[in-house]
Amino acid sequence: MPALIRWARFRTHDGIIGFGTYSEVGVAVHEGDMFAAPRPTGANLAIGEFQLQCPCTPSKIIALWNNFHELCAKLGKQPCKHPQFLIKPASCVIGPGEVIRRPTNYAGKVAFEGELGIVIGARCTQLSASQAAEAIFGYTCVNDVTAIGILSENPDFEQWCRAKGYDTFGCLGPVIATGLELAALRVYTRVNGDVRQNYALADMVISPQELVSRLSCDMTLLPGDVIACGTSLGVGSLKDGAIVEVSIDGIGVLQNAFG
Amino acid sequence: MPALIRWARFRTHDGIIGFGTYSEVGVAVHEGDMFAAPRPTGANLAIGEFQLQCPCTPSKIIALWNNFHELCAKLGKQPCKHPQFLIKPASCVIGPGEVIRRPTNYAGKVAFEGELGIVIGARCTQLSASQAAEAIFGYTCVNDVTAIGILSENPDFEQWCRAKGYDTFGCLGPVIATGLELAALRVYTRVNGDVRQNYALADMVISPQELVSRLSCDMTLLPGDVIACGTSLGVGSLKDGAIVEVSIDGIGVLQNAFG
Repeated sequence: MPALIRWARFRTHDGIIGFGTYSEVGVAVHEGDMFAAPRPTGANLAIGEFQLQCPCTPSKIIALWNNFHELCAKLGKQPCKHPQFLIKPASCVIGPGEVIRRPTNYAGKVAFEGELGIVIGARCTQLSASQAAEAIFGYTCVNDVTAIGILSENPDFEQWCRAKGYDTFGCLGPVIATGLELAALRVYTRVNGDVRQNYALADMVISPQELVSRLSCDMTLLPGDVIACGTSLGVGSLKDGAIVEVSIDGIGVLQNAFG
Repeated sequence: MPALIRWARFRTHDGIIGFGTYSEVGVAVHEGDMFAAPRPTGANLAIGEFQLQCPCTPSKIIALWNNFHELCAKLGKQPCKHPQFLIKPASCVIGPGEVIRRPTNYAGKVAFEGELGIVIGARCTQLSASQAAEAIFGYTCVNDVTAIGILSENPDFEQWCRAKGYDTFGCLGPVIATGLELAALRVYTRVNGDVRQNYALADMVISPQELVSRLSCDMTLLPGDVIACGTSLGVGSLKDGAIVEVSIDGIGVLQNAFG
């Protein structure tokens, strides 16, 4: 079992963007490419000397629909054989501590969806499940924010990409954990401190390895791309001013304010 | 009325990628940023000294559903008030002369959809319709290729992004035309020389300016991003080995082989 390492991107007070390994005392700064043999520079930043940024800059987020048995059962749907997904554009991505903004001209419900995010480490296509394991760099927390009222506004066309693609609706972070053992982990979503989602990753229909394998047959995946594994029970909406936190042990807490 | 200029990206036989203005005799090479004060270098490449590449490298393609009155009428749908769209990822993009590949493990129909593509020239968000005109750099041809059998495979979830997101399913080119007057233009799609689509851009439900304005309120648009304006009557499927051409006067012919 490889050691748990938490990779972070940071911004110093001078505006310098960098990356490194994160711990309770700070960041050990690295150089090169996070996904390809990064090298420690020897420099360290203490907590307070930097702000965490979105831990990667995906070219796309592939967001899964209905990938947990408990949610399938509640919706009365059969578990899917192939990943069912939509694409959230890179323009929607924000990191920990950034603000989720209400879309202009939209007064309806804005929902949180706490999820596990797979971070891809290499350009890949047509992977077998065993090859897929190697293409997974690590895991992060995702808040797959959704303008619920947009989704079903048009009875002829479900607006998945629009409802989930608004700027700030793809929250990622706080870090990317490598060497994480998922089997016993749970996803927690808290709103103003109250637990609203608490579900086991073991309940996932299509596993991360299988997701990466199958999605790599649907499209080329690039380093830093994120697969949001789908949410489970407990999705709800955010009131203006709410603080929403998605957390998974080993990754940490992704906190964002709304509105 | 500004002069018609056709911007192209090229690759020389030595593998050098560049861009410039295209004419019947070749390319006048430019340097800098195509979208921000490009400068002629004085060099010229004659036809035969280069291959045309995809004319831009979008971060995303926003692909419209049902945006022509004739198609709405045929489908028995009301014209949409707001653009209805899905996102095709950057990984699906190919240029003129490249080959559209059948997805592995998919034996069903692969359809062509000839469309007008709007190429965005500046980072923009929350634009009015008059501001939107300035954000449009120019226009290109799009073949919004679709794995029709995937689209409705799951009765619970229409797989727009998967059916239209496969590598090579976003054909763009051959150039980006600026200063184009759209009102009288038509989109033609030919398969092995036979005209399969021939429709007027004047039949569009939501105009390019209005599309850019409204979509810029849904997400930030970036230079090089493409909005595929939707197709109209005549969509059909491609047999292995087919040559498909989408053309619009002033832009030229986007030719791709299939399979």
